[in-house]
Amino acid sequence: MDKVTAWNELAAQLSVDSIRASTGAGSGHPTSSMSAAHLVAVLYSEHLRYDADDPKNPGNDRFVLSKGHASPLLYSVLKAIGAISDQELLSFRKFGSPLQGHPAPVPEMPWVDVATGSLGQGLPIGLGMALAIRLDDLPGRVWVLMGDSEITEGSVWEAMANAAFHEARNLIGILDMNRLGQRGPTMLEWQGEVYAERARAFGWRALTVDGHDVEAIDAAYREASDGSGPTLIVARTVKGHGVSFLADQEGWHGKALDQEQARLAIEELGGQRSIAITPPKPESMIQPPARTWSLHLPSYDEPEATRKAFGETLAAMAERTDIVVLDGEVSNSTHTEDFQKAAPDRFFEMYIGEQNMLGAAVGFQALGKKAVAATFGAFLTRGYDFVRMGAISRAELKLCGSHAGVSIGEDGPSQMALEDLAMMRAVYGSTVLYPADANATAKLVAAMIDLPGISYLRTTREKTPKLYESDEVFPIGGSKVLRSGSEDRATIVGAGITVFGALRAADSLADEGLWMRVIDAYSVKPIDAETLRLALEETGLLVVVEDHWREGGLGDAVLDSLAGRGADLGGRVIKLAVTEMPGSGTPEELREWAGISASKIARAVRAALR
Amino acid sequence: MDKVTAWNELAAQLSVDSIRASTGAGSGHPTSSMSAAHLVAVLYSEHLRYDADDPKNPGNDRFVLSKGHASPLLYSVLKAIGAISDQELLSFRKFGSPLQGHPAPVPEMPWVDVATGSLGQGLPIGLGMALAIRLDDLPGRVWVLMGDSEITEGSVWEAMANAAFHEARNLIGILDMNRLGQRGPTMLEWQGEVYAERARAFGWRALTVDGHDVEAIDAAYREASDGSGPTLIVARTVKGHGVSFLADQEGWHGKALDQEQARLAIEELGGQRSIAITPPKPESMIQPPARTWSLHLPSYDEPEATRKAFGETLAAMAERTDIVVLDGEVSNSTHTEDFQKAAPDRFFEMYIGEQNMLGAAVGFQALGKKAVAATFGAFLTRGYDFVRMGAISRAELKLCGSHAGVSIGEDGPSQMALEDLAMMRAVYGSTVLYPADANATAKLVAAMIDLPGISYLRTTREKTPKLYESDEVFPIGGSKVLRSGSEDRATIVGAGITVFGALRAADSLADEGLWMRVIDAYSVKPIDAETLRLALEETGLLVVVEDHWREGGLGDAVLDSLAGRGADLGGRVIKLAVTEMPGSGTPEELREWAGISASKIARAVRAALR
Repeated sequence: MDKVTAWNELAAQLSVDSIRASTGAGSGHPTSSMSAAHLVAVLYSEHLRYDADDPKNPGNDRFVLSKGHASPLLYSVLKAIGAISDQELLSFRKFGSPLQGHPAPVPEMPWVDVATGSLGQGLPIGLGMALAIRLDDLPGRVWVLMGDSEITEGSVWEAMANAAFHEARNLIGILDMNRLGQRGPTMLEWQGEVYAERARAFGWRALTVDGHDVEAIDAAYREASDGSGPTLIVARTVKGHGVSFLADQEGWHGKALDQEQARLAIEELGGQRSIAITPPKPESMIQPPARTWSLHLPSYDEPEATRKAFGETLAAMAERTDIVVLDGEVSNSTHTEDFQKAAPDRFFEMYIGEQNMLGAAVGFQALGKKAVAATFGAFLTRGYDFVRMGAISRAELKLCGSHAGVSIGEDGPSQMALEDLAMMRAVYGSTVLYPADANATAKLVAAMIDLPGISYLRTTREKTPKLYESDEVFPIGGSKVLRSGSEDRATIVGAGITVFGALRAADSLADEGLWMRVIDAYSVKPIDAETLRLALEETGLLVVVEDHWREGGLGDAVLDSLAGRGADLGGRVIKLAVTEMPGSGTPEELREWAGISASKIARAVRAALR
Repeated sequence: MDKVTAWNELAAQLSVDSIRASTGAGSGHPTSSMSAAHLVAVLYSEHLRYDADDPKNPGNDRFVLSKGHASPLLYSVLKAIGAISDQELLSFRKFGSPLQGHPAPVPEMPWVDVATGSLGQGLPIGLGMALAIRLDDLPGRVWVLMGDSEITEGSVWEAMANAAFHEARNLIGILDMNRLGQRGPTMLEWQGEVYAERARAFGWRALTVDGHDVEAIDAAYREASDGSGPTLIVARTVKGHGVSFLADQEGWHGKALDQEQARLAIEELGGQRSIAITPPKPESMIQPPARTWSLHLPSYDEPEATRKAFGETLAAMAERTDIVVLDGEVSNSTHTEDFQKAAPDRFFEMYIGEQNMLGAAVGFQALGKKAVAATFGAFLTRGYDFVRMGAISRAELKLCGSHAGVSIGEDGPSQMALEDLAMMRAVYGSTVLYPADANATAKLVAAMIDLPGISYLRTTREKTPKLYESDEVFPIGGSKVLRSGSEDRATIVGAGITVFGALRAADSLADEGLWMRVIDAYSVKPIDAETLRLALEETGLLVVVEDHWREGGLGDAVLDSLAGRGADLGGRVIKLAVTEMPGSGTPEELREWAGISASKIARAVRAALR
């Protein structure tokens, strides 16, 4: 069989199997799979250098199905390359099956690197992968298959601009321009030249091709992978291609065929096939063994900003060649610039586009890098969807948000992170850290680098006094009891900047004979439930103080830990938090105004104990 | 004085006043103000039709300072047009001053329509304003001043694509291309033609101009406002223009000059001036009087999905001409398509670009529209920064997130909103609603339309049984006690989909002689603290069940309400929530797996009461 016939036959098989899988499931996206069947058939047959038996081989190319709803197509080609069986294919969307409605890298699905299904994320992720591959001097290319609806997402254009700027020549975008979105025609329908012009204006090479002409696809892939990209292939396709009653028809998005429709469609596609293919073999490469590092962390005796300690700790760890740092054009504020000075080749300026920065971090970590991304905590809200999806990707991300709370002062509320703890707590498997001083920061940054899952470190703009010696240890999930005695009348719980107010309040209350326990809850998630419960038991009153909205932050974390699995709550908890919209002012003025200053803490304690 | 001299003199005054204000404050962004001084001088002198005495005049043009850090420039021109005094100008960034570090529409600052300071938001907002103006057949134009760093933000390109698609001819973007970002050169520095080409590829007219040549600026504005836009004016500017030691120098971003530097700079700019100008007068228009509407809400007797009830209620209210609805290309899932059918001219398809959709909604509401925006709850995470900034804008937004929780079933976790309650609770002044049935939905949608601040309605994918009669009332902040008796052993608190599991659990426990109170907490924020506290007092145990992560959602809201201002918590609270990463499955399978099904609720109650 000649190649052209073989590719067309495989494409028909992929369409047939996409229909079989989705009809078996009773849901899914067969027509969105069929539009890209030829694109994927030629890719896996001829261009994607990929060892299905060794999906983590560093020599592999990478394929990202950005249009994750076309998962039947992906699973169908995984069957064709022998990664999964036909029986597994037919478990699609069933409870417990690794063949989820949208691809996710569950353990049984090692051929999927990252989760997709939230549109517009594949290209940023692919960019991170492409840069990781280049950093390691590897031969791989990254192929990202996008839908035409998702290309309206701004994150795609953040990635386009950055890929051109960073000269990611090994990055290839494939646009499955099938004209139809979920609810009707896309914005640009089949205006392929418009897409191509946009890509060219953003510094990409753009090729246009008939997405069902396998020879044309083959030629485009050959050109696109010549190493002079990044390249966007705009492929004109037909949704539901190959089946008369589906092709280019509205009303078929995300709909499985019923049994009779499936029978007719499969017949029209020439019936079931059992073609097996082997993608081009990559150079066989061995993952370099994990190294151990003995690093010297910075230590602090003078007041320093935790954001500065974050940057300096990263710089001190820069010798670790697995660490990469991504910036959203604020490196002199977050202090990732310190890492840049130490390891410029592993510092990536992603400019102001937080979604792409976070997506690229997901891509980096998928290829084994310890990816650190930092911006103002407030601006991480910009990329919450990428963090959420990162958790589904089982990604290991190290995020830092600087300029937390009203404590930033004069810049005003647009720059104040006041919801970041809530946002980051509500991420599956996340760790949320909020150090009070520079020595605690150094330890927590070092710990964060090797934590699984998504970690978030919250830093403060202003300098804070030294609170801990540099040999103090800060276990994740721990806390520090800074004041404690048998006559404690209440416990003040702070984290980060509010620890200092808590201490000053305790001092002034002690002068009045009111002894306070003071806890630094530097680990907001997981939180030290045991210490907090004991404090409530022994002192009867917790006053939790946070530079954050009242909802979802430290106070809610403390209450949650007290509720635990249903123990009696017995005792009182007062939350001091930001409850009105701040303006500008000095940090002190704003903390006083918000009711989270030392004097306001003391007042709240006095009132409660009256 | 001829016009050219007058404009140049005004520009110098704006630069001088920007320096004076920021030096007085000891912080701020004088150099980023100076680069755009000529652009703003010509705009306010000659082109912006604006009545400073009547900033809400419907005939006004609108100006959005998307580069919000250049606030000294905005305040300086507000002084020049007589809106504020020099003394007020010098209150910049002081505690309590309406002249915040970044502009915010506080009551004393009626010349600011929306908050800015998170970059890349001005153009989406401006697009919403431009469409609102067109909808009302008004003559206004919308001028958006952007910085060159922010143009990397994807939200800008979402707005570019949508503005061209919607033919927003009254939208004018001005790009202050001053080459320098916060930490050094921007990605494209002075490559003005690249910006222009990108804009053209996105369907805009683009003009390039020397941003310090007032005649060239005047000509560009004239062309841009001829009604055949949207138009981007790429203005080549110099950061710190006009002062030798600042002009095009790195290291001056966001730094105020000290007194001596300020003296020298002002001298070089020709000293202080006190030029007063009057912008071109708009046609005087009177806001049409507020209408009252008597609308007939839908009622339901059969099971229906709350998302469908949401759409049908919007459609039933479509007669209200102040309502506009924005879609992120999922109108057949959220059911905003029902509104589209009823009022196609007030339905705006914003395609898949949630940031722009939300930004445009902020723009619409700034001009008096009741702006409703809907997508999957999961994808609202994409635009969290726009919601956060919307709160600073004192915006009135009506948001709906469909497809909540594991209850969506087979599509898998990428489509499941599991953090939306946490995200939306942590928004200043927000209202969070989660109806269980279609009749409750109709009432809450109707209430939401007239609520101040940011409201969020969470809807469910699957049909739910009728629970309430259509004449039931649902006050914001209320709850419904669905089962109650003197022998209640515990209280089960649910919201939305989990109310039904709570009821079934209560029924099966009643069969065992364990009487349950059941509360439908349809108003998650504000929550009905009184009813919950009474339930804890009377039954001693609350079991809170939510289809959401354990963090930040209904359970945390309940705990927060119990803590209140420090009352004794006395009692037990058990939170049942999603704690592991879901995959695909049926809604029932997934709720059972997550431990939030009727049987799992009953089991938890039994274990707690053992």
